[in-house]
Amino acid sequence: MTQIKKAEKITLDHGSGGLASQNLISDLFLKYLDNPLLHDLEDCAILPAQKQKSRLAMSTDSYVVDPIIFPGGNIGELAVNGTINDLAMRGAVPLGLSLGLIIEEGFELAKLEIIIASIADCCTKAGVDIITGDTKVVPRGKADKLFINTTGIGRVDEHINISGKNARPGDAIILSGTLADHGITIMTNRAGLQVSGDLHSDTMALHHLVQALLAENSAAVHVLRDPTRGGLATTLCEIAQASGISINLSEPDIPVRPVVGAACELIGLDPLYLANEGKCILICDENAATDLLACMRSTEAGKQAACIGRVVDGPAGRVSLTTSIGGTRLIEPLSGEPLPRIC
Amino acid sequence: MTQIKKAEKITLDHGSGGLASQNLISDLFLKYLDNPLLHDLEDCAILPAQKQKSRLAMSTDSYVVDPIIFPGGNIGELAVNGTINDLAMRGAVPLGLSLGLIIEEGFELAKLEIIIASIADCCTKAGVDIITGDTKVVPRGKADKLFINTTGIGRVDEHINISGKNARPGDAIILSGTLADHGITIMTNRAGLQVSGDLHSDTMALHHLVQALLAENSAAVHVLRDPTRGGLATTLCEIAQASGISINLSEPDIPVRPVVGAACELIGLDPLYLANEGKCILICDENAATDLLACMRSTEAGKQAACIGRVVDGPAGRVSLTTSIGGTRLIEPLSGEPLPRIC
Repeated sequence: MTQIKKAEKITLDHGSGGLASQNLISDLFLKYLDNPLLHDLEDCAILPAQKQKSRLAMSTDSYVVDPIIFPGGNIGELAVNGTINDLAMRGAVPLGLSLGLIIEEGFELAKLEIIIASIADCCTKAGVDIITGDTKVVPRGKADKLFINTTGIGRVDEHINISGKNARPGDAIILSGTLADHGITIMTNRAGLQVSGDLHSDTMALHHLVQALLAENSAAVHVLRDPTRGGLATTLCEIAQASGISINLSEPDIPVRPVVGAACELIGLDPLYLANEGKCILICDENAATDLLACMRSTEAGKQAACIGRVVDGPAGRVSLTTSIGGTRLIEPLSGEPLPRIC
Repeated sequence: MTQIKKAEKITLDHGSGGLASQNLISDLFLKYLDNPLLHDLEDCAILPAQKQKSRLAMSTDSYVVDPIIFPGGNIGELAVNGTINDLAMRGAVPLGLSLGLIIEEGFELAKLEIIIASIADCCTKAGVDIITGDTKVVPRGKADKLFINTTGIGRVDEHINISGKNARPGDAIILSGTLADHGITIMTNRAGLQVSGDLHSDTMALHHLVQALLAENSAAVHVLRDPTRGGLATTLCEIAQASGISINLSEPDIPVRPVVGAACELIGLDPLYLANEGKCILICDENAATDLLACMRSTEAGKQAACIGRVVDGPAGRVSLTTSIGGTRLIEPLSGEPLPRIC
């Protein structure tokens, strides 16, 4: 860390591909993220041959969240967990992640170290490695602190068929936990609002939860989706459109932590539209719903899972909500941006 | 394109994950990049099962080049060709690319369309698809126009063993074409320098050239590397270090276009340190060098290939240059940044 301590801030040299870049890689990135594939420091990692009969999954996401460090997590944790979750939502077992950093000149190395250490922790918890990476530095004012791209590859067994197109009338809709924790945390944190009670991001990797569901009854799992940007409402509208079905939700069954609900009311935002970073929607065969809900609740990530609605016959893309007082309102997909840079 | 024409500029809504995002995807991205895997618009693409006994390669790069459109190419072409090349340098056949965009609010949609159309052209030429993607929009002043991450996956046959560690004394060093075209083009373009003669980026995908070499004699191919940031000098220093050998280059044999050489002299930069985006270094068994050089010259990308030096016994990491007048100078890796945002 000699080189790093001396510099204290990221300079353009750290992105040059020369000696300063190499020192950053060896003194910071390898210190936290080392593994046999990354260790080679080639521009391209090579994984061992995969077992036969599995397909390959690939997913990418860039993270531009502001602030980069927030209650319950930071941009690095989001980047690891978010891409693992996108793989998991197709039933894939993650094989490895790439890590692409775009850093603003002048960014504090101490903060970068906090974020890289978090990435390493998340990877360890998830059992997934960063296998290749890239770092670019842009002059001061040409980016905002730090942007991260993670791209993940995974293995999907031949018999798995999970897609946003697979919802069928009668299917149960199960949510893995409480809604809107991430969105409201970023929102209040950025606005400098003081909210009594504990608001924190729900960032969490869900692949172990998904693997438990698939082990329980893979044929009954029709759709999995993590309601990030646009929230539960937008995600369900997309699924209802893709599957050509309607959805009815039961408002009283949708779990929202009281402190989150109160903060949403205060700001005037609907938790149905706020981003989640550690939750998934499961749409499954109604006959398997009880078992799959119990299975989800037996996992760390799914303890507060609840059945929140049903797939019904009706116009493609229609999502309705039966409210606590028995009324019905139509749920539209998000059209504007309630909060930029939420993830 | 109704939605797009109306908006004309990227707004935060385009990155919200809501309707505006969906319109951007369907009206612009799918218009140019459509293919069966991308078409599903899931957050994660699933590729068919691969043939047995091949390993998986993965490489990532973020592109932050300034200007984003320059003589001979643009940021989108760099992003496609650059990541294909990183895969190719390990002997991988590309299977697919992800595309992650970070766009500054206010960016002109017409420019975005030019870039997406170029990406589509490069993909078609290369025979590689964008199979999954992600778009984020950040407020004005929080990024500079457009940053692109491409991550690629590829298939590597079991018998292929290409790595920066594999150079051996006696090996020939072959360069696939002229040096410094990309670096000097960006440099002069950004500085607004008028240089007589045609300066343009060399951005080009090299996987077909590499597959030709491997078909000719895969066992003789020890190292492949594309000398991007840091240039030929830095890349060879890294290889010499990783392989524990010394390298001797012959200056008169290194191909540099006269207009590039003149521009480098004018600005006072050494072409050995400037970035290339469509060239590769091949280090191969000396007995196969004549055939591999001929093979390279028979490809579109390698017409001007030349043997530029030898691997020799000596201290690890030592790279020397025998100059045109018969002197010897030591080549050091790049330590500072001659030019930020070159790629």
